[in-house]
Order: sequence, then C-alpha cells, then structure tokens
Amino acid sequence: PPRMAAYQKLLTVGTKIIGVGRNYAAHAKELGNPVPKEPVLFLKPTSSYLENGGKIEVPEPLEALDHEVELAVVIGQRARDVPEAKAMDYVGGYALALDMTAREIQSTAKVFHGPWLRAKIPSPQSVLLLMEKRQKGSTSDMIFKIPFLISHISSIFTLLEGDVILTGTPQGVGPVKVGQKIEAGITGLLDVHFDVRRRHSH
Amino acid sequence: PPRMAAYQKLLTVGTKIIGVGRNYAAHAKELGNPVPKEPVLFLKPTSSYLENGGKIEVPEPLEALDHEVELAVVIGQRARDVPEAKAMDYVGGYALALDMTAREIQSTAKVFHGPWLRAKIPSPQSVLLLMEKRQKGSTSDMIFKIPFLISHISSIFTLLEGDVILTGTPQGVGPVKVGQKIEAGITGLLDVHFDVRRRHSH
Ligand SMILES: [Mg+2]
Ligand SMILES: [Mg+2]
Ligand SMILES: [Mg+2]
Repeated sequence: PPRMAAYQKLLTVGTKIIGVGRNYAAHAKELGNPVPKEPVLFLKPTSSYLENGGKIEVPEPLEALDHEVELAVVIGQRARDVPEAKAMDYVGGYALALDMTAREIQSTAKVFHGPWLRAKIPSPQSVLLLMEKRQKGSTSDMIFKIPFLISHISSIFTLLEGDVILTGTPQGVGPVKVGQKIEAGITGLLDVHFDVRRRHSH
Repeated sequence: PPRMAAYQKLLTVGTKIIGVGRNYAAHAKELGNPVPKEPVLFLKPTSSYLENGGKIEVPEPLEALDHEVELAVVIGQRARDVPEAKAMDYVGGYALALDMTAREIQSTAKVFHGPWLRAKIPSPQSVLLLMEKRQKGSTSDMIFKIPFLISHISSIFTLLEGDVILTGTPQGVGPVKVGQKIEAGITGLLDVHFDVRRRHSH
C-alpha cells in the first residue's frame, strides 16, 4: 500500500534529518534566545529514529530529556535550489516528530518520530501540535514557513527522497524523566506515545 | 569485485558522516583553539560526497573554502557501545577525505572524499596525509586514536555499515580558491585531485 511505502522511505531510504531551531517566536523567547533572521539549521542522524510505542532512552548522566513536538516534512524527491513557489512539489508527506533534546549534551540529542501521515494533509501550515498538556501550538505560528524552509535548505544541502525537515517546536518545552510515559499528537490526525527509560550500555 | 562493493557502500548505503574536530594538537593550536578533553563531534550530510576528479563548488558569497585532509574510517557493520579492544573489528576500510570547510558559514560545509582504499591498510595509525605542500601530517599524531574514536562515538550514535568517521586534520589548513586545482594523498597509497569552481544555483 502506498501509505506503508512512503513511511518505509523515511526509515530506510532517508539519509538525513535537518532540524530547524527557534522557528516559533514564543519558544525562542522561553529559552531566552533572540528570534533568528534566518533559519538556524542543524543535522541529526537517521539512526536515532524510533517508531511509535518505542522506548526513549535517557543516556547517563542525565535524568531527563527535553520534549519538542514538531511537524516533520518528509521530502518526496531530490531537491536542489528549489524556488519557493515550487517547493511544495517536493513534499512526500508529513510525520509527527518528538525531537528529544539534551540541552547540555548536544551530541546525544535524538529524534523520535511517530507514524506516517497521509501524503496530503489539508493545511500543514495550520495544524495544532500537542504534547501532553504542556505544548500546544499551531504551525501557523512558524516564523519561517514550509515552502521557504524547503527552498532555503535546498540551496545549502541536496535534499533526497526520505530526508526529513523538523520544522521547529512551539513553546512549552520541558523535561521528561525516566519512568514517564508521554503522548503527543496533531489534533484529529495522529497520536503517538512512548515510554521513557534509562539507557544502559549493552 | 570486493573493492568496488565496499566503495559503493560508502556512497549508497552510508547515512552519516561524523566529523572529529581538533584531533591534532598542532592544528588546534593554529586555529587558536584549546586541545579538547574529549572528541569534538559534528555531523555532515552524505549528500556532500564528491568522487575523485569532481568539482568542488564554492558557494556565494565566499571566495574560498579551507582544505582539511583527513583519514576517513568506513564502518563495516552496525556498531553500538563497542569496547575499545574490539573496535577495529567494525572497520570496513579507509578512504582519503578532503573535508572542505567554510569557517564562517558552518552549514555550507561539505565533505569530499577520494576513492576507496583496501579494506586492510597496514598501519592506519601511522600513514602520512598530504595536501599539496601545505599539509603533511602523520596519523600517529591523532590525539584520540581510531579504536577510541569508534568506541566513544558508538556510545553516542548507532554506527551503521557505510557510515564514515572523519578523524581530523593535521596542521596547515588554509584556503583554496575558485579556479584552483588541488591534490591530496596518503603517501604510497592514494592520490586524489579536484577542481575548485564557483557554485551557481541551477
Ligand atoms: Mg545523515
Ligand atoms: Mg527541535
Ligand atoms: Mg574536518
């Protein structure tokens, strides 16, 4: 089925995740950061993907990771120097992401994502992202919108099928601790849940 | 042939490149940086690979990129929490890398690599890296050696077949400009060459 095929692409074909930092003004403010003039970009490894229902592992010596619920844009075809007006042609679909961040230890940061959504969601730029009762924000509040992000990022990196753009998190980030269960969602479309546990070397 | 198969894995199966910064004391010093107490890690996208003989593109508004010749370790099998004593079992082979860096514009940094070397090189920890007449340094001067790097990095990321660790560059980094041709090598084993040109959006 096409839905499974698209979802598998993210997990098996995708080679990079590009995170966008501080893309909601209220979130930049809660961290005490200025609102950026251009997108703040960073890479995350695809080996950090976790499927819905999986276990988020908190590495030593941390007791908690910060949750960031985000709309993930999955690239559907190779994109390089794409103009903003054509950018949406390169979207293969969307996923719900929980970008788990270790603020003090940048390199242990991980990405967790929920299941694949339909290739077309009616208005990706105006869905409500939810993380427990702590985060609730509309994608309409993104500083840099999806077409601009795709155009801009494709001028720096070559985007390939299955690559993912994490479009940033609304305000309300905070710690999730070992032993907790967490849920996140996009209203009316999708819910994901994870257990949080201690990571042990094995 | 096995040689081609291994080389293809880096290009087609590999999903991440982990760069190690400041892994030679003399290079840290030339940039005015302290010698790190643990490896400084960052990710690079595999979409930046360029095969030997290709064209290095300098993005606007830069006039030059800095060259960093490095020994690249190609991972041969999934590695997670690997002890140092077993780390070399996870090496699939080696490549020569030219890590081209835009120091002011971190996100445009690119990686270029030369052709695959034999799966076994006699003493990877004591080969001579060369970049024109400007860089010449032995891998014996690495602060963090290959087994430690694999063990340490595998405690943070899950390393997969075809992933690459760039082990750092010796002293002598400097700019290469649009219009230049550059050559780099590992003595007695390998030489690569690239043309440097202006990148135009297309
Ligand atoms: Mg990657
Ligand atoms: Mg994030
Ligand atoms: Mg480097």
